Amino acid sequence: MKNNETNLFSKRHSLAHVLLMAVSSKYPTALPTIGPVTENGFYYDIDFGTTKIGPDDLATLEKEMHAILAQKLDFVVETVSTEKAKDLFAKNPFKIEIIDSIKKENTNASITLYHTGKDFFDLCEGPHVANTKDIAAHSFKLTSVAGAYWRGDEKNPMLTRIYGIAFDTQEELDAYILQQEEAKKRDHRLLGKQLKLFTFSELVGPGLPLWTPKGTFLRKKVDDYVQELRATYNYQGVTIPHITKKDLYVKSGHWEKYAEDLFKIETREGHTYCMKPMNCPHHAQIYASELRSYKELPVRYSETTMVYRDEQSGELSGLSRVLSITQDDAHVFCRESQLEAEIEGIWDLITTFYSTFGFNNLTPRFSRRDSDPKFKGADEFWTKAEGAIKNLIEKKAKDNWADGEGEAAFYGPKVDFMAKDSIGRTWQVGTIQVDFVQPSNFGLECVNEEGKREPIVMIHCAISGSLERFFSVYIEHVAGNFPLWMSPTQIALLPISDKHHEYAATVAKKLRDAGLRVDLDSSKEGLGKKIRAVREMKMPYWAVIGDAEVTNDTVTLEHRTEGKVGEMKVEELLARLTDEVQAKK
Amino acid sequence: MKNNETNLFSKRHSLAHVLLMAVSSKYPTALPTIGPVTENGFYYDIDFGTTKIGPDDLATLEKEMHAILAQKLDFVVETVSTEKAKDLFAKNPFKIEIIDSIKKENTNASITLYHTGKDFFDLCEGPHVANTKDIAAHSFKLTSVAGAYWRGDEKNPMLTRIYGIAFDTQEELDAYILQQEEAKKRDHRLLGKQLKLFTFSELVGPGLPLWTPKGTFLRKKVDDYVQELRATYNYQGVTIPHITKKDLYVKSGHWEKYAEDLFKIETREGHTYCMKPMNCPHHAQIYASELRSYKELPVRYSETTMVYRDEQSGELSGLSRVLSITQDDAHVFCRESQLEAEIEGIWDLITTFYSTFGFNNLTPRFSRRDSDPKFKGADEFWTKAEGAIKNLIEKKAKDNWADGEGEAAFYGPKVDFMAKDSIGRTWQVGTIQVDFVQPSNFGLECVNEEGKREPIVMIHCAISGSLERFFSVYIEHVAGNFPLWMSPTQIALLPISDKHHEYAATVAKKLRDAGLRVDLDSSKEGLGKKIRAVREMKMPYWAVIGDAEVTNDTVTLEHRTEGKVGEMKVEELLARLTDEVQAKK
Repeated sequence: MKNNETNLFSKRHSLAHVLLMAVSSKYPTALPTIGPVTENGFYYDIDFGTTKIGPDDLATLEKEMHAILAQKLDFVVETVSTEKAKDLFAKNPFKIEIIDSIKKENTNASITLYHTGKDFFDLCEGPHVANTKDIAAHSFKLTSVAGAYWRGDEKNPMLTRIYGIAFDTQEELDAYILQQEEAKKRDHRLLGKQLKLFTFSELVGPGLPLWTPKGTFLRKKVDDYVQELRATYNYQGVTIPHITKKDLYVKSGHWEKYAEDLFKIETREGHTYCMKPMNCPHHAQIYASELRSYKELPVRYSETTMVYRDEQSGELSGLSRVLSITQDDAHVFCRESQLEAEIEGIWDLITTFYSTFGFNNLTPRFSRRDSDPKFKGADEFWTKAEGAIKNLIEKKAKDNWADGEGEAAFYGPKVDFMAKDSIGRTWQVGTIQVDFVQPSNFGLECVNEEGKREPIVMIHCAISGSLERFFSVYIEHVAGNFPLWMSPTQIALLPISDKHHEYAATVAKKLRDAGLRVDLDSSKEGLGKKIRAVREMKMPYWAVIGDAEVTNDTVTLEHRTEGKVGEMKVEELLARLTDEVQAKK
Repeated sequence: MKNNETNLFSKRHSLAHVLLMAVSSKYPTALPTIGPVTENGFYYDIDFGTTKIGPDDLATLEKEMHAILAQKLDFVVETVSTEKAKDLFAKNPFKIEIIDSIKKENTNASITLYHTGKDFFDLCEGPHVANTKDIAAHSFKLTSVAGAYWRGDEKNPMLTRIYGIAFDTQEELDAYILQQEEAKKRDHRLLGKQLKLFTFSELVGPGLPLWTPKGTFLRKKVDDYVQELRATYNYQGVTIPHITKKDLYVKSGHWEKYAEDLFKIETREGHTYCMKPMNCPHHAQIYASELRSYKELPVRYSETTMVYRDEQSGELSGLSRVLSITQDDAHVFCRESQLEAEIEGIWDLITTFYSTFGFNNLTPRFSRRDSDPKFKGADEFWTKAEGAIKNLIEKKAKDNWADGEGEAAFYGPKVDFMAKDSIGRTWQVGTIQVDFVQPSNFGLECVNEEGKREPIVMIHCAISGSLERFFSVYIEHVAGNFPLWMSPTQIALLPISDKHHEYAATVAKKLRDAGLRVDLDSSKEGLGKKIRAVREMKMPYWAVIGDAEVTNDTVTLEHRTEGKVGEMKVEELLARLTDEVQAKK
């Protein structure tokens, strides 16, 4: 943990104690149990007996906590004997159980108390801030109350868990709260429904999205763009079945590691088949179907196809976690000497792709090995591959990169790219993974300049990663406002009344002839209702057509976020839209 | 069976007897067993004792058969008692067994003998020709010898099976032999290997083709063309996962009928999932995700995706029969009143598609119901749907159609299209199937003009059917000579020596800039070897470039089947190729 991370941890941890102080003063008979730190704050599990704690009580407790912080109380550690600790907590069976279990694990373990001011102490191993004045006023908030079993076991008593969030400053807290509220509004599961992009069926099952024509259109736009970029790097499409005899994964090494995550099939003849959880072993079989000359390398195969993983149904959520995952996958088969150039090509592809979608300044995370023996393959390979990546990081990322020592895959080092979305959340997006192990397990080779067999290396490089996960992030990033170039419908023409329909139809034809996707609302509804409908569907543009527009051979254009653009000639509209599409705006 | 089919059956059956007459005269101790008719001829299983029969013996037997036919012998039936029959065949335990089993099945069954001439008879139920002169000279041929167990049981003695083929005339026999030889040369499994289109891996398993970049390119060309045609009929793409809870198929009705053909998956949580064997139930879920107004109908969903069937491994062969089947599938959801227009649209789409690939004059086969109660759904629906198809057949097929009474699917009537390939073989290609049952099982409806719920109808309509099966037929149809518009590489430039490379590169650039797919062979090989290589890969065109061509700013063009085209300016070449591509030649 870095210093500022430790500080924040101490603050959150200390706030759990301050929460308990507030609880103890209001509810003297309440029995505290444990109060740990969470990703964004802290909680405390407390036995309130028969007393129910509700949201209103949180406000009172929060007020009391502010008062305690203002007293500038010191946090002081004290080491005590087990006996003394058990004496001090004699009335609290939960704390006694904790003390006993500390002692049981290690008879020499010391028991520490943390005092806050004169009158309060709690059993705790720290760390804490030195004084409550180190915690900025209003940098925390109690957020919710929930039930929780003691030690998470439903046979134990039910306790009351009070959750809080906490940051270094009030500004950071406010920003976080705002981000959460904004994230709720942008929830891709709700927008997916509102914009009619995908649906789930109880008969098909959770984690198995069914994509409507609109959603399919968006997927195709993204994938076509990936393929367009790949074409400039000479990737070639291949096609594989979604199943295989398990033999393929035994040979590749995946069976040993991941067998339980695979969907397995017993055929009528009693063979075990698997649904593919990844595409590399199949692609490797195509590479291996011919003896390759070094002149053919690098061989770059790409394929957008589904892979499947047997996840717990409780872990499935919207598009973020699904059972059928569409990968825009690719594998480069190359010589060791070609590694750096190939990784650079993929690196450029990834940054170009994400910047088009408004994710600029990706932060690469260099996942490399440490001394753990789980990292397989020859030392020499690791050194060369990590060297190649290091060179690229210096060239491309300068200081903006993260070091992931010990975080490599067992089969080789990798670069993961981290992106910040429009409301400040960080997501892992593309990844480039070097693999020595599969080529070796499958005996992948080329014939080199001397006519000798030479082992080759494989690079895994999905760009969007998974189309489902990409959309779970991207829909929220743009709040459903897809840019013009990818919008299923780009502009709606809204004639005010029947007499404007004929002219509106000629405008629609002009736009469609230029390849634009146009919706002409020729219903009998009033303009207000027509506009509400296009707003609801987050249409990029709409053009109102009434008497003036018919007379002037114009439309009056409006944009979903920028508002009224104004009256303009149809040719001007056409030029504006086609320019934007061209620029992938 | 129609009359001419009965005649051919009798001829083939009679030839089995004539074969036995020839055998008996050459091998008097041989014991005949059974001699049935096959799809294109006949065979006879005979116990030759320790004598081995080889290909040379077939020629001798064939000669003897010709001599027998020339004797103009009558076939005469005689009914005999079981006792007499057993007396006559006393020395042949196989025939005794047959007589006993006839009697066992039906004690009143009569035993018939067929006499041919004075000296030969065989146990047989007929029918036969009246006289050997009814069989045209040289209209048959003995083709092969194989081992076969008595009654197909490996615990029984091994017999010798002699195969023959037979047709009405010598011309038909010759045509068939020629077709078989031609088919062998065009075998898509061999061409697939030679042209590097697909491969199989033992680790992945049989029936699971892996498509190389070239094969994938061809698949995409065909599918893009299907989608281009579909776009003109307003089909919309959808995307579904390849698995589902079994609940979907229980509800659709497929589980009850086809459960054993499905690949089934037990998840880690103990649920039963299936790999989809068809796409309709998933597509129906997308339709059902919203309440539809009649104004939205017809809704037309299309998707090219794989389906899976658990076939016996012995039935798998090349691309003709695979476990993972790529369907260019589509489903139309429409009102009953829209059926005829929708079927007509699909009909036109199918004929346009197949005529592009050189399958003209498709013969529709109208599969309709008979009185069998297996045909589900209301009478009224059947009458209307069959009426709609009948109207279209009269309009579009005139007299060129086949009647398949009783051959409908259980869920509705259908039209299958039959195509003749370039060597005269008939294949079933596209199909249009009306379905009342699934919409009813899933409760698919629309809200009609009166604001009431109205049940809708579904039409299944894959165009290429399965891309694998399409290519198994099409590769053989064109003998691997893919037309220019779909060829992965369209032209190879063959510079004669190093000094012509620079000019060849400028020609390559001009062609590539025009969107053509060009291979420039800049190896050190001689021209002869370069030409052999492009011929081997069935390249549509190649252009030789030497001193004259560099001087004249020309190339000398050659076509893979039409031979030398001649010297021409690069602009002329460009125009020729782009015109051909445009015309999908």
